[in-house]
Amino acid sequence: MQIEKFLIGNDFISSDAVAEIKNPYTNEVVSKAYKSGTDHINSSLDYLTEVFSKYKNSPVYLKAELLEKISLKISERKEELAKLITSETGKPVKFSRIEIDRAALTFKLGSEESKRIEGEVIDLDLLKGSENVTGIIKRFPIGLILAITPWNFPVNLVAHKLAPALASGNVVLLKPASASLTCGIEIVKIIKESCDELELDYCPVNVVTSSGSEIEKFISDDRIKMISFTGSSEVGWKLKKKINRQKISLELGGNAGVIVDQSADIKGAVAKIILGGFGQAGQSCISVQRVFVHEKIYDEFEKILIEETKKVKVGNPYKDDTDVASMITENDAKKIETWIKDAVGSGAELIAGGKRVNAVLEPAILVNTTKEMDVNSKEVFAPVITLTKFSEFKKAVEEVNDSIFGLQAGVFTENIHNAFYAFNNIETGGVIINNVSTYRMDSMPYGGLKDSGNSREGVKYAIEEMTERKVMVVT
Amino acid sequence: MQIEKFLIGNDFISSDAVAEIKNPYTNEVVSKAYKSGTDHINSSLDYLTEVFSKYKNSPVYLKAELLEKISLKISERKEELAKLITSETGKPVKFSRIEIDRAALTFKLGSEESKRIEGEVIDLDLLKGSENVTGIIKRFPIGLILAITPWNFPVNLVAHKLAPALASGNVVLLKPASASLTCGIEIVKIIKESCDELELDYCPVNVVTSSGSEIEKFISDDRIKMISFTGSSEVGWKLKKKINRQKISLELGGNAGVIVDQSADIKGAVAKIILGGFGQAGQSCISVQRVFVHEKIYDEFEKILIEETKKVKVGNPYKDDTDVASMITENDAKKIETWIKDAVGSGAELIAGGKRVNAVLEPAILVNTTKEMDVNSKEVFAPVITLTKFSEFKKAVEEVNDSIFGLQAGVFTENIHNAFYAFNNIETGGVIINNVSTYRMDSMPYGGLKDSGNSREGVKYAIEEMTERKVMVVT
Amino acid sequence: MQIEKFLIGNDFISSDAVAEIKNPYTNEVVSKAYKSGTDHINSSLDYLTEVFSKYKNSPVYLKAELLEKISLKISERKEELAKLITSETGKPVKFSRIEIDRAALTFKLGSEESKRIEGEVIDLDLLKGSENVTGIIKRFPIGLILAITPWNFPVNLVAHKLAPALASGNVVLLKPASASLTCGIEIVKIIKESCDELELDYCPVNVVTSSGSEIEKFISDDRIKMISFTGSSEVGWKLKKKINRQKISLELGGNAGVIVDQSADIKGAVAKIILGGFGQAGQSCISVQRVFVHEKIYDEFEKILIEETKKVKVGNPYKDDTDVASMITENDAKKIETWIKDAVGSGAELIAGGKRVNAVLEPAILVNTTKEMDVNSKEVFAPVITLTKFSEFKKAVEEVNDSIFGLQAGVFTENIHNAFYAFNNIETGGVIINNVSTYRMDSMPYGGLKDSGNSREGVKYAIEEMTERKVMVVT
Amino acid sequence: MQIEKFLIGNDFISSDAVAEIKNPYTNEVVSKAYKSGTDHINSSLDYLTEVFSKYKNSPVYLKAELLEKISLKISERKEELAKLITSETGKPVKFSRIEIDRAALTFKLGSEESKRIEGEVIDLDLLKGSENVTGIIKRFPIGLILAITPWNFPVNLVAHKLAPALASGNVVLLKPASASLTCGIEIVKIIKESCDELELDYCPVNVVTSSGSEIEKFISDDRIKMISFTGSSEVGWKLKKKINRQKISLELGGNAGVIVDQSADIKGAVAKIILGGFGQAGQSCISVQRVFVHEKIYDEFEKILIEETKKVKVGNPYKDDTDVASMITENDAKKIETWIKDAVGSGAELIAGGKRVNAVLEPAILVNTTKEMDVNSKEVFAPVITLTKFSEFKKAVEEVNDSIFGLQAGVFTENIHNAFYAFNNIETGGVIINNVSTYRMDSMPYGGLKDSGNSREGVKYAIEEMTERKVMVVT
Repeated sequence: MQIEKFLIGNDFISSDAVAEIKNPYTNEVVSKAYKSGTDHINSSLDYLTEVFSKYKNSPVYLKAELLEKISLKISERKEELAKLITSETGKPVKFSRIEIDRAALTFKLGSEESKRIEGEVIDLDLLKGSENVTGIIKRFPIGLILAITPWNFPVNLVAHKLAPALASGNVVLLKPASASLTCGIEIVKIIKESCDELELDYCPVNVVTSSGSEIEKFISDDRIKMISFTGSSEVGWKLKKKINRQKISLELGGNAGVIVDQSADIKGAVAKIILGGFGQAGQSCISVQRVFVHEKIYDEFEKILIEETKKVKVGNPYKDDTDVASMITENDAKKIETWIKDAVGSGAELIAGGKRVNAVLEPAILVNTTKEMDVNSKEVFAPVITLTKFSEFKKAVEEVNDSIFGLQAGVFTENIHNAFYAFNNIETGGVIINNVSTYRMDSMPYGGLKDSGNSREGVKYAIEEMTERKVMVVT
Repeated sequence: MQIEKFLIGNDFISSDAVAEIKNPYTNEVVSKAYKSGTDHINSSLDYLTEVFSKYKNSPVYLKAELLEKISLKISERKEELAKLITSETGKPVKFSRIEIDRAALTFKLGSEESKRIEGEVIDLDLLKGSENVTGIIKRFPIGLILAITPWNFPVNLVAHKLAPALASGNVVLLKPASASLTCGIEIVKIIKESCDELELDYCPVNVVTSSGSEIEKFISDDRIKMISFTGSSEVGWKLKKKINRQKISLELGGNAGVIVDQSADIKGAVAKIILGGFGQAGQSCISVQRVFVHEKIYDEFEKILIEETKKVKVGNPYKDDTDVASMITENDAKKIETWIKDAVGSGAELIAGGKRVNAVLEPAILVNTTKEMDVNSKEVFAPVITLTKFSEFKKAVEEVNDSIFGLQAGVFTENIHNAFYAFNNIETGGVIINNVSTYRMDSMPYGGLKDSGNSREGVKYAIEEMTERKVMVVT
Repeated sequence: MQIEKFLIGNDFISSDAVAEIKNPYTNEVVSKAYKSGTDHINSSLDYLTEVFSKYKNSPVYLKAELLEKISLKISERKEELAKLITSETGKPVKFSRIEIDRAALTFKLGSEESKRIEGEVIDLDLLKGSENVTGIIKRFPIGLILAITPWNFPVNLVAHKLAPALASGNVVLLKPASASLTCGIEIVKIIKESCDELELDYCPVNVVTSSGSEIEKFISDDRIKMISFTGSSEVGWKLKKKINRQKISLELGGNAGVIVDQSADIKGAVAKIILGGFGQAGQSCISVQRVFVHEKIYDEFEKILIEETKKVKVGNPYKDDTDVASMITENDAKKIETWIKDAVGSGAELIAGGKRVNAVLEPAILVNTTKEMDVNSKEVFAPVITLTKFSEFKKAVEEVNDSIFGLQAGVFTENIHNAFYAFNNIETGGVIINNVSTYRMDSMPYGGLKDSGNSREGVKYAIEEMTERKVMVVT
Repeated sequence: MQIEKFLIGNDFISSDAVAEIKNPYTNEVVSKAYKSGTDHINSSLDYLTEVFSKYKNSPVYLKAELLEKISLKISERKEELAKLITSETGKPVKFSRIEIDRAALTFKLGSEESKRIEGEVIDLDLLKGSENVTGIIKRFPIGLILAITPWNFPVNLVAHKLAPALASGNVVLLKPASASLTCGIEIVKIIKESCDELELDYCPVNVVTSSGSEIEKFISDDRIKMISFTGSSEVGWKLKKKINRQKISLELGGNAGVIVDQSADIKGAVAKIILGGFGQAGQSCISVQRVFVHEKIYDEFEKILIEETKKVKVGNPYKDDTDVASMITENDAKKIETWIKDAVGSGAELIAGGKRVNAVLEPAILVNTTKEMDVNSKEVFAPVITLTKFSEFKKAVEEVNDSIFGLQAGVFTENIHNAFYAFNNIETGGVIINNVSTYRMDSMPYGGLKDSGNSREGVKYAIEEMTERKVMVVT
């Protein structure tokens, strides 16, 4: 098995230490990578600081071509990269394939947005003495961005940092999750290869394989101008406390609520909730967790949901039709097993699933829960949903909002007033009408309110966060 | 009675001929204005051409202040101006008051938009050889605009030409409708007064009182860069055939359709349809004319509509609670009386109103009409609506579209899919959800498809039509 | 030699008549195409009207993919298509190659813009009674567009009609110039092939080979919603007089002025003026025609210009280093030869070139011309420039403006005030600072004022012209 | 003398403690205000949290009218408010008057922007499975904003927090600088009065008079969603370290550089540099501090600058023609006096001014300074400028950038390439061409890079920072 190197400066290098990544379903070692150390990080920061002055001034067509090449190479290697995701993270391969398609789109959007960075001309002759004064406004890159990415979308969430950064002239040090190191490295290899083909004598992206704690030592380093972090709320907000003058964009967790109104198409809603709640073992920050169903349709909804849940394919992630495989570690599965038991111990009823075999947790549905239970109040990040009845739409909105999180919500309704009421009143970054909270198109603004984060991704929107407006006043 | 002068150059002047305007309800002469002739028009075109080179280069704060002054003066003289509208056009005074508020808003929006004329900066280094090339894009005024305005909103539709034109640095020759000459003159007097207060030694607006045929002689004059016309479809499209290289924006007629879906709030819909169909005798190009009601609620809807129609106050336009007064001429009322009789003769049933006394036509409701009847296929522009039953929403959309016109439509529905289906498929410039076709906010894009016109007003959008983009390429 | 078919409906078809296209340099027949007739045009209009209802509702990703495929195929066949341009039009092959690169970019921009059609949400609660009212604004395609394109950029000017039309959901009937029929057909073949690969059962573009006069018979046909014409001013404005309710966008001619200020880099300016004035025999509507040079540098400028003009390679268009080959017909060359002689007869001096061999006219420089001479007042569209001395920058701007045309202008100056003065005061759609009028990037707004036209192309801007805003008001 | 109250909830209240504010020039007590305590802050946070849910949902016209009323009242009371500024801060009254005009504009821009909060509609059908999916994006207010404002523009910098906050539906707790308490209170009184006139039963703004250290105790309070701070870099960055999940926008200090290129208009540049460097005793964060002059014009520039500096009127701030009065405290004046002496002690030469009388420091010019001296490396915030010669424009840009700060810079040049080079390469939020760093129009984006801050004000841009995008996905 090849041991993957990390990229410091313009070269992939090795070290004395090696990290092993195991497939969480088979528990076999599936990849290995050399571990970078503190010195490597330090060198990379110096290198990228210098490279920034070149890359930011490169022509737009070069940035656009670089990003398009990356997108194309990812598409061309779709099957191989999808398998890599599945190997490292246990994500069922059908979802891994979708992720690769989306990552290719994300980089393509980066290529396209690089040609359209916002610029404005405004008249400034609003007061006497400013006759004929004009303002010319453009966005400029901010510099070196430290990107810290999670394992649950180990390719596309890397893309969501790199694509906007490269599109807008920034440089990036990537620190992929330990559980999906080679997914991150593989994308950087594709970037390096693309830079070489374009005959660049530098690479605007580096990748390290250091641990989170090693990276944290550099979190307030002045060479870093922005940290872009996707991961747990706990770690994210802790990092924010440690930074100095850096910007930090946080894409964190959630316990997404979904409302099924009395006018909803029940079967359609069930199908989407199962996909959004149990797909890839619920390990997405916008997985369906808390489902609120109108009392008039509750019984039918529950019945169909239980039936359909039984049909969910649990098992080997390499098989094409598997919906749910293992969670990322057995400990995570055990933790959620405990939450379920605690809930049942406090009066909840488990009406489907919930059995655990090693790291695999069978899709579970709980009813009669209270909002204080861990399965509601915390981020479950597992194939578990809770069902709650409601009698009035506005109350359901209140229940969705009764959370420390605010990432996305789903609302199944035919009623236009309820749809707009939800949009105006649900405290989340996104409200998905007639689909689940789990919906995301990579061009849309995406990000959380409250504990779920402080930024918006989606390539165009991430570019805004990674650039600063400057104005030239012409008098 | 004072005889109003017209404004040529920087002076109000008189002539040998005088036009008299009669109130269509009382038939009394309510105002008089000197009539301008061909020479006056000619002089004005010369004057405005010269003034354009000054006004276009005046600072933004001057344009903004001018427009704000106009807005304030209109507000301050609300009651007087509302009465003037009622005198000349017979519009019930409560609607005249609303028109004055809206005209003040329209000029205020002009003041605000003058500070926000679109400007863009775009990177042009998209191909080798264009490294570091930047495009700076601004909108520039096009020059002299001939504004031809109708009598049915004799103040606010003048505002919709003058506000965007003045905001963007253009100059205007106004030709108000013969039936509402002094309404037009009065607004220009306010503009002249405002210019004087700002110590301008010129006025970027002139007003003539010539007939339509006199104005038409100049329609292809090269000094005129754009014609902005609001009026009948017949005249509008005829003018378009006569122009030379001028731009022409046409805001024309309609036979607006309104759909009342089975999920609609019936009473709410009835109240709005009565206001939108009968208010100011239906003399608006977005008056409700053709109403399509779902069969499940048809009977109840018809019943309530008839009841409520009986409560409509018909009579003296000067009275505060009058809803419907006379039409603009007795001939117009007679023409529509004939259309109603023709419809009944061909099988339609008149279920409410329809009696005529002089120029006053009682609000009329027809059922069992066919789409070929004049009351459906032509613009009725009178207090007449037709009621038609439908069984399927998509068919109702088809019926709305089965028209040569396409200005606005109303859709009463609670269903979000029907609302968006209507938006995507109704062939009109505006689709009003849960309100009538008659709804208009003066900032929104407003204008027609098909025979209803070729442009969009609403101050920001009219500014786009009255300006041309220029690019400076900086290499 | 294969006889090219035209595309009506979803099939390429032949006819009884055949058109032959000769290379203007060799005078040999280089391609043949079947000629379409009136019935074909009629059938195509019916077909495209029907296809519009399908294509406009196709998903964005399909439109984007279609346009990207077209772009890729053009790139892949660059050399072959470049040769085709050279064969039909006599354009030196090095310029043909650049045109192919640009056409590929234009279609790629189309693909990208299809995902970014403007949409707005605006609050409408600006007056009492409109609380919580919101406007949702989108742009919708207008329908069937008749595209009439010229021979001088026989591929990229086709792209500038088709890319924005297809990006925004419109359908197109293309009528390419008679002199470059198979260039037009070839692009449509690529489109058809792309549609087939995407398994569309229709093609949103048709192409006819009829003459201009046959097409003109349909110019006011109601099935056509817009005419997009690029060609001579004479024909363009004549067409505008013939239309009915259609929109018409005109991209017409010019007699571009270029100013060389005293602060200019003389050698750099000369190099660009030679390329912009003589390249492809000056047969571009933005070719440099009238050059105004500051008196302080005039003598040096003239000297260098003459020297460099001698180095221009005149000859066989198939040779890689040829700058100037034949004009499109010998008659055109003769006409300009006459204009030069007339100028000289009236006092002008020919200081370089001007000899004609068949259709080839040697690059010519005239001095001591007056603005009334044809070589200044009309569009020369040949490798001829006039040189005029000026003493004050503002006067030079006036001279540039002393023209019936207003397409683009070039200004060589280091002075920022002069640059912005030129932008604000030169009456052209584009002002190119430190480059010639001939500069164009395909994403920038491009189009003329005055007799040079009434519209803006550049993909994003053309999309605006090919769409209509609709508003949904949600109450 | 009236003792001013502070506003907690909907009532102005008093307390046991009173703060006295002295005029720094006369040293007389000019105003008094009751001091608020910790409990008051706490009550206010509760109140405003509750009020937010009302205010955010109020119609746009109410917000617009509120802001316009505030603007009008400020204009109407211009002279009185200008005197108040001069009394509390010693600002020469002619500059106080300008500040009042600008504050009125800032609130007016708030009124106008409230009607134009950005909203987008985007197509999301970019991948299979998302056919016809649309995203509707709007900006929503974030909640309670703590505004901490400085004394040097005690009215307009309050306006720059309150206007965008109120325009976008947020609520604000204002903590004005201790030195200008009643300026802050006076604006809040105007706001309260305006709310009363609009018959609101609440006030979306409160004001406290507590010390900075008392406020700091609440800096990480979860009820506060954003801190908007304008003040010293030292305090600003310290606050950033103390916050929890809040957003923080920092508008901090600078040591602005101005370049005078060889092509500059020397007299014009001198006049503006004197105004920008010495006006209101240099107590602006964008005061001219470091002036870099091209060697070819250096001697003449220095000579004229010295001459003109002698004409600066130093003295009583209440006099209409005074340019420079006292600094805010005698200690501040002493500190700068020391910096000047230190500079001279290390080899610099004082070529004009520099004498101190109490808190008044005579406008001073230093030459032969080094960049390490306090007068260059720190923010001088006093009427002191340093003059440095340069030989090459790019080197001058480097010198401007050789600073920890990056707020604004001025560049006097006629050369367009130098102007754009400066824009692209000077590391400041604003680059003012042919004017000083001190230029600001209240609508333009304004804010710093590096130690000068992390945000942009200017009403439209501040609204972006005070709102969060939410997307409704309609499927």
